[in-house]
Amino acid sequence: QEFNKRPTKAVPRSLSRSISQSSADSFTSVGSESSDEELSPLDRLQSTSKGLSDFCIKNIKKADFGRKEIEIAQQEMPALMILRKKAGGEKPLAGAKVVGCTHITAQMAVLIETLAALGAQCRWAACNIFSTQNAVAAALAEGGISVFAWKGESEDDFWWCIDRCVAADSWQPDLILDDGGDLTHWIYKKYPNVFKKIRGIVEESVTGIYRLYQLSKANKLCVPAMNVNDSVTKQKFDNLYCCKESILDGLKRTTDIMFGGKQVVVCGYGEVGKGCCAALKGLGAIIYVTEVDPICALQACMNGLRVITLTEIIRHADIIISCTGNKSVITREHFDRMKSGCIVCNMGHSNTEIDLASLRTLELKWQHVRPHVDHILWPDGKRVVLLAEGRLLNLSCSTVPSFVLSVTATTQALALIELYNAPQGRYKQDIYLLPKKMDEYVASLHLPMFDAHLTELTDEQAVYLGINRHGPFKPNYYR
Amino acid sequence: QEFNKRPTKAVPRSLSRSISQSSADSFTSVGSESSDEELSPLDRLQSTSKGLSDFCIKNIKKADFGRKEIEIAQQEMPALMILRKKAGGEKPLAGAKVVGCTHITAQMAVLIETLAALGAQCRWAACNIFSTQNAVAAALAEGGISVFAWKGESEDDFWWCIDRCVAADSWQPDLILDDGGDLTHWIYKKYPNVFKKIRGIVEESVTGIYRLYQLSKANKLCVPAMNVNDSVTKQKFDNLYCCKESILDGLKRTTDIMFGGKQVVVCGYGEVGKGCCAALKGLGAIIYVTEVDPICALQACMNGLRVITLTEIIRHADIIISCTGNKSVITREHFDRMKSGCIVCNMGHSNTEIDLASLRTLELKWQHVRPHVDHILWPDGKRVVLLAEGRLLNLSCSTVPSFVLSVTATTQALALIELYNAPQGRYKQDIYLLPKKMDEYVASLHLPMFDAHLTELTDEQAVYLGINRHGPFKPNYYR
Amino acid sequence: QEFNKRPTKAVPRSLSRSISQSSADSFTSVGSESSDEELSPLDRLQSTSKGLSDFCIKNIKKADFGRKEIEIAQQEMPALMILRKKAGGEKPLAGAKVVGCTHITAQMAVLIETLAALGAQCRWAACNIFSTQNAVAAALAEGGISVFAWKGESEDDFWWCIDRCVAADSWQPDLILDDGGDLTHWIYKKYPNVFKKIRGIVEESVTGIYRLYQLSKANKLCVPAMNVNDSVTKQKFDNLYCCKESILDGLKRTTDIMFGGKQVVVCGYGEVGKGCCAALKGLGAIIYVTEVDPICALQACMNGLRVITLTEIIRHADIIISCTGNKSVITREHFDRMKSGCIVCNMGHSNTEIDLASLRTLELKWQHVRPHVDHILWPDGKRVVLLAEGRLLNLSCSTVPSFVLSVTATTQALALIELYNAPQGRYKQDIYLLPKKMDEYVASLHLPMFDAHLTELTDEQAVYLGINRHGPFKPNYYR
Amino acid sequence: QEFNKRPTKAVPRSLSRSISQSSADSFTSVGSESSDEELSPLDRLQSTSKGLSDFCIKNIKKADFGRKEIEIAQQEMPALMILRKKAGGEKPLAGAKVVGCTHITAQMAVLIETLAALGAQCRWAACNIFSTQNAVAAALAEGGISVFAWKGESEDDFWWCIDRCVAADSWQPDLILDDGGDLTHWIYKKYPNVFKKIRGIVEESVTGIYRLYQLSKANKLCVPAMNVNDSVTKQKFDNLYCCKESILDGLKRTTDIMFGGKQVVVCGYGEVGKGCCAALKGLGAIIYVTEVDPICALQACMNGLRVITLTEIIRHADIIISCTGNKSVITREHFDRMKSGCIVCNMGHSNTEIDLASLRTLELKWQHVRPHVDHILWPDGKRVVLLAEGRLLNLSCSTVPSFVLSVTATTQALALIELYNAPQGRYKQDIYLLPKKMDEYVASLHLPMFDAHLTELTDEQAVYLGINRHGPFKPNYYR
Repeated sequence: QEFNKRPTKAVPRSLSRSISQSSADSFTSVGSESSDEELSPLDRLQSTSKGLSDFCIKNIKKADFGRKEIEIAQQEMPALMILRKKAGGEKPLAGAKVVGCTHITAQMAVLIETLAALGAQCRWAACNIFSTQNAVAAALAEGGISVFAWKGESEDDFWWCIDRCVAADSWQPDLILDDGGDLTHWIYKKYPNVFKKIRGIVEESVTGIYRLYQLSKANKLCVPAMNVNDSVTKQKFDNLYCCKESILDGLKRTTDIMFGGKQVVVCGYGEVGKGCCAALKGLGAIIYVTEVDPICALQACMNGLRVITLTEIIRHADIIISCTGNKSVITREHFDRMKSGCIVCNMGHSNTEIDLASLRTLELKWQHVRPHVDHILWPDGKRVVLLAEGRLLNLSCSTVPSFVLSVTATTQALALIELYNAPQGRYKQDIYLLPKKMDEYVASLHLPMFDAHLTELTDEQAVYLGINRHGPFKPNYYR
Repeated sequence: QEFNKRPTKAVPRSLSRSISQSSADSFTSVGSESSDEELSPLDRLQSTSKGLSDFCIKNIKKADFGRKEIEIAQQEMPALMILRKKAGGEKPLAGAKVVGCTHITAQMAVLIETLAALGAQCRWAACNIFSTQNAVAAALAEGGISVFAWKGESEDDFWWCIDRCVAADSWQPDLILDDGGDLTHWIYKKYPNVFKKIRGIVEESVTGIYRLYQLSKANKLCVPAMNVNDSVTKQKFDNLYCCKESILDGLKRTTDIMFGGKQVVVCGYGEVGKGCCAALKGLGAIIYVTEVDPICALQACMNGLRVITLTEIIRHADIIISCTGNKSVITREHFDRMKSGCIVCNMGHSNTEIDLASLRTLELKWQHVRPHVDHILWPDGKRVVLLAEGRLLNLSCSTVPSFVLSVTATTQALALIELYNAPQGRYKQDIYLLPKKMDEYVASLHLPMFDAHLTELTDEQAVYLGINRHGPFKPNYYR
Repeated sequence: QEFNKRPTKAVPRSLSRSISQSSADSFTSVGSESSDEELSPLDRLQSTSKGLSDFCIKNIKKADFGRKEIEIAQQEMPALMILRKKAGGEKPLAGAKVVGCTHITAQMAVLIETLAALGAQCRWAACNIFSTQNAVAAALAEGGISVFAWKGESEDDFWWCIDRCVAADSWQPDLILDDGGDLTHWIYKKYPNVFKKIRGIVEESVTGIYRLYQLSKANKLCVPAMNVNDSVTKQKFDNLYCCKESILDGLKRTTDIMFGGKQVVVCGYGEVGKGCCAALKGLGAIIYVTEVDPICALQACMNGLRVITLTEIIRHADIIISCTGNKSVITREHFDRMKSGCIVCNMGHSNTEIDLASLRTLELKWQHVRPHVDHILWPDGKRVVLLAEGRLLNLSCSTVPSFVLSVTATTQALALIELYNAPQGRYKQDIYLLPKKMDEYVASLHLPMFDAHLTELTDEQAVYLGINRHGPFKPNYYR
Repeated sequence: QEFNKRPTKAVPRSLSRSISQSSADSFTSVGSESSDEELSPLDRLQSTSKGLSDFCIKNIKKADFGRKEIEIAQQEMPALMILRKKAGGEKPLAGAKVVGCTHITAQMAVLIETLAALGAQCRWAACNIFSTQNAVAAALAEGGISVFAWKGESEDDFWWCIDRCVAADSWQPDLILDDGGDLTHWIYKKYPNVFKKIRGIVEESVTGIYRLYQLSKANKLCVPAMNVNDSVTKQKFDNLYCCKESILDGLKRTTDIMFGGKQVVVCGYGEVGKGCCAALKGLGAIIYVTEVDPICALQACMNGLRVITLTEIIRHADIIISCTGNKSVITREHFDRMKSGCIVCNMGHSNTEIDLASLRTLELKWQHVRPHVDHILWPDGKRVVLLAEGRLLNLSCSTVPSFVLSVTATTQALALIELYNAPQGRYKQDIYLLPKKMDEYVASLHLPMFDAHLTELTDEQAVYLGINRHGPFKPNYYR
């Protein structure tokens, strides 16, 4: 029953790091809904140009649009393209049956099609009811992937799609690629016999990892799992640079605010907060940090940021950004003391960071001024600007660079390959981090984009350092 | 005949600094065109809620939407609001008749209404056929300003609107507020007797100033003029910070590009180039600068930027930004040597910076991929990404902060007040810079936004420095 | 025999991070040698003002000067001072016998005297024959510490001093505080019975840790040891900020070079390289990075630094800084291709990073131009500027901030306290990292210097995060 | 009598920008005083190796040491060396008699010897009684320059030296190169007939320019003068980058302070303040700015610096740096409210910025802790750290990069050449700025140091811009 928690349909943390606003945006950009799209996908019979129909999506006719989006993403995801090329004759996933449950975006499509190119047979569902890019799903289906996902699924739809991925005829999945743990949970609970035969699980979200550890503690994890979330590439690239690249964009697109001289409070100085601070500092904002962890607080100090409590600084804040992973970080008490015009947003985890419930009271008026922007009005005329209703700003109002997602996606691909090809016994019924050497390989595949040239160790140097000439270059725990 | 140049209908430089994407954006955000809007404004009879009809705009019904936009802009334009408050009983422009020709945007509306609040009677036309925000024009009309402007004027419309501002019954304008010189030109040529009685001209654009100097050289400038373009507030705030704030935004909204590690060439290291470099550096781009002026080149060197010719670096560039004010800076020869995927855009002056004509050849294919984004395809498959068809990126694809525009708008307001109230003889038939003291006053009105506290000189210190305790603090030429 | 390596008398890596130039500098600043100081300390009878004589140092008369240096250091080492205050009645090291072997500097003196204030009885030797600040040693002796150390010991002196710390009458040490492993080695080899009764070892250097692991692998480590070197406070503060703070200083004091526009190659982008790059970028240098590890290389790319091989960039380099921990990073081949005037220095590990031997050839002339600065002349007149003869620049030519050293010193103190007070059985015969909670405590003790205010978790938040309200806030592996 | 002010023997502002600590430092580094140096230069007969004796310096035997210092400076002053080379056969100063009064430093020696190489005959005195580098003066004398200067002149010596430069036999100077106006004053007052025949004056200091304008206002300036102080190269390079490069160094050498997280108040945000802020920000200081001029204050705000009064922030300041050019900026009232350990220094103008007199009271104790560092002790034990007794920090405790001085020195050389070669009538009895084109030339001569490549205008572009292909590229007032 440790697994009985209802799946979070609200955007889970994982989403924050691995999907962008693209769900909404890209869709719009690839054509608006025609009237026949109002039918539920469940009620429509569709087939690809080759006559395949083992999928369920919004509209197969949008495949061309989706293909274009996928092609654009491919250009920024060089590592996966290299994996495809390298595969050549020998396909490391030949015969592998992969069942997946992730966001269905152009970037994820590049990953899924890479798995297919490496020999895998894939069935895929969405890990979030809102985030599917319908045109991308169409392109995947047209390309022969059995995908079951559309934007705006109901909860029943959500589970139905997942079930369709698992319970196909004569289909015993070898590998699970999960984001949030819902797929893993479903198989574990409903198809225990299928679960037992799985060769490995790859999970990339905080939530999913948490659930795997619960399972493991209860001695019920009978399958090896790879924890991609805690790999150095996820922590030190995905979290940091996604936020650095998207915070300015998210704020500008919603509020057109000028950054120069603005007093900004960043709550939390982990990777996400560090990324936000770096970007904001570059444009001349004055930044204050709140922290609970003295180590992160000391880093903020040494980096020239004032560490202060939110209560102390609240009256002066022009912008408040929550990056904690915690709940109720910004409360009604804080809202009551903000100055008029203050902008409040969330880059952290779920929408619990900002205590929205406390703002749903009679004396406050909510004014929806444009998509993702609400003004909350106090009786005295004060107005606070709330972005994305407290959901993740970069998910809702910005895009996340494909290149950074590529780092995580490549890690996922390699984790699947490793689990599928590892000699029996290398991985037990436990949760593993990808070997350091593979982290390094993922990084190396991304260097050509920057025309970066690595230096090679001489034999003599390798001996001196006591390491292999070709890595791994650092101990596993090095971050 | 020095004045016989056809007015530039293509976006003049002045525009780049003083208007934002808002033209298009804001309009969209305040409602789409209803069918009756397809009538030309010239063919529609409209009147305000108070029965006034001395204006010509798209649709008076949009006034409420426009009012909201103006109110939002007001919050970021504190200095003009303070001028209104300070006026109180004594109105420094009481009785002044001001004829204006500027962009009709929310920010300019705040300026126009400030002039009205200070006692002026205003008639207004647009200085650009594309840039009018129709809803804002409606709000101005509803508020009693005689405005003649709409988005998408024909060239005939353009001059008709200007003429209607000048040639009203019993209306001898006292002051001209111009942006580009078209209005001044029109009065000078067509209404010489009106021109002679004008008490002053305030001009803010490079082009307009150039034309005034031509007139002055020819001994035909019979009216004092204020050169706002060369005031320290325009040069060191408007040019620098507008670009710093909008370059990232313009690139992100069009291309969703990641900045980290990108090799960017910035052509020109004047204020615009300096602003672009500062912003890009903050997000981890690697920047190269091209320059013709050794002084600016040396500044770039000292600031840690490589100065190099475009030809030398072209093969490595991920992004090329033209910021020169020059023509044919990026030529076909350069384009032919770019790598596939290179992004090219213009933050400089007019769309002559990039030699577009050279790209309109048979072997190249243009692909319009989304608004403001074209892919140009070479026969070998190379694709170059051209933004905004070489027009100003921040005009087309970004917004410009109201606060920065406020600095220039306040300077314009003070220039008008000064010209109107100056004792006879203070200003001759010449072109003046606003007195340093007024520049300082403009700046001081913007400090409260930052909760900034000035230090005051003691009498003793003022004596020591040989200046007045209340300024001006620097010589006129100080930048 | 895993332990039979001769102690490195050349400056070990540990030194680079934990001691400053102060050895030489401070001494000079506190008075020059009088003639009677030419006697070896071994041949002089000295006693403190209280008549104690269980020590051996250069000159007890310098105690006052040393005391002043210690007092200055105390001001920047708040955490140790807080530990002293907190101790109050209950002394957590009451009765503990601590034998130590570290640099004898003002900062270390603050640590040693803190241990004494907490109840410990201390005997101390130097871990380096050059680094002792004689005046500080005098102050320690005068204060009652049995210290055996002076600047310029011979190798025999070195071991004699260590031996005197161990082999005192009726003295069985409880705890070892070591830096480099020489003391541990000595006891292990020469006094195995003493070694067995030790309650714990605290070691902070790379070298010392390496030697402990060798011992442990050979199943010969019969005492628990704390690895301070790999604690987050050492890695993320000491290494990063010491270098960031000292690289500019080291270069300026030796060469008076201007940084603006200089092309600098930083070899290695670990913590040390990251610190150097951050500081140099702030002053307008153009930085290139060389790396062997693709993960660090990718970080450099994302941070806007070109990653390139030394051979490719060598001809353009104005300054080359080695930060690798590796050997022969800069070779004769590189030197031969440098341009005249190029400055070469080492911030990394030992003086093997630069292949000096290759420069000791007949055709090259060495010219010693001032302390720590040599010009190496090629036959064609080219001159390369070598700093500190390839030894660590910040050790030789700069100072390291006491505050940053305080972080490591406090960690050492807490490690000793933990080992001394831990209930039997908590620590086995193994090598441990300090518990995360203690790392956090160390950090928290340093926050008051910045007037930083931590936010406290509510009970509700702690439950949500699944952690204790008072920490630890992050998993042990978090960096 | 406008000229009757006693010359400022205390370090004038000009000094702050054009000389470094080198006076003291370099001298020390080139050998200590031997006993026969205790004789006054006035009482010693010396001659060069060639038998010349028309000079008066400390010790001709130090010439070799001085020559080495000059050679090092030459490497960083490429523009002057290029001028020498370019001269070749035709010497633009052939026959010119130049009398100079500047600091006698290695950098000025490069200038003086360049003038000689271009054909000038030079006689030189020091503009400051402390700043002469004796070895450099020796090298100049040995090289044939008639130099009259030594470190530690009395006031009588000072004027005697100047007089000896003017009143030589059969010597009518053509040109004056002055720094502070003392030489000009002396000739004007004492040798009016010589003064009248002068062809031009070049002056680089604020003070000297002020005095020239006074003279001009009184209609007594009968000679054209070049104002080098207000040239763009002086203002935008010398002032800005000298301070940026030296502030960290000055603070580190005196206090070894760590910059990360320190709260620093910079009084004044002109070029000097901007330079200090840029450098400090790069190392993680938290910066507050005080300003009297709203324009500079607004720039600080836009750049992300808090503008605040000193009184408001004083209690939190770790470091206070005065950069105003004003007097009594930091007063006793401020000192009384500082926290213990606060560091106070002056980067601005003269030592009047800090009100030292107010600290010379009975209840405060001054403790001289090392060169240039005093602790001022309050009765309650508070100690404030005062650097360089309030004199200019970078003059006293740091060095200034020769490269930046080269920009100003080259401007001086070109100004002399221009005045000497200008056709009669080009310059009247007035004060001029160097033509923009020459500023640009100076800059261009410094670009090769950075391997910077200028872009050249095409004819078509030059026509479009309405300028000459080879410059000047900007209007004269452009900064």
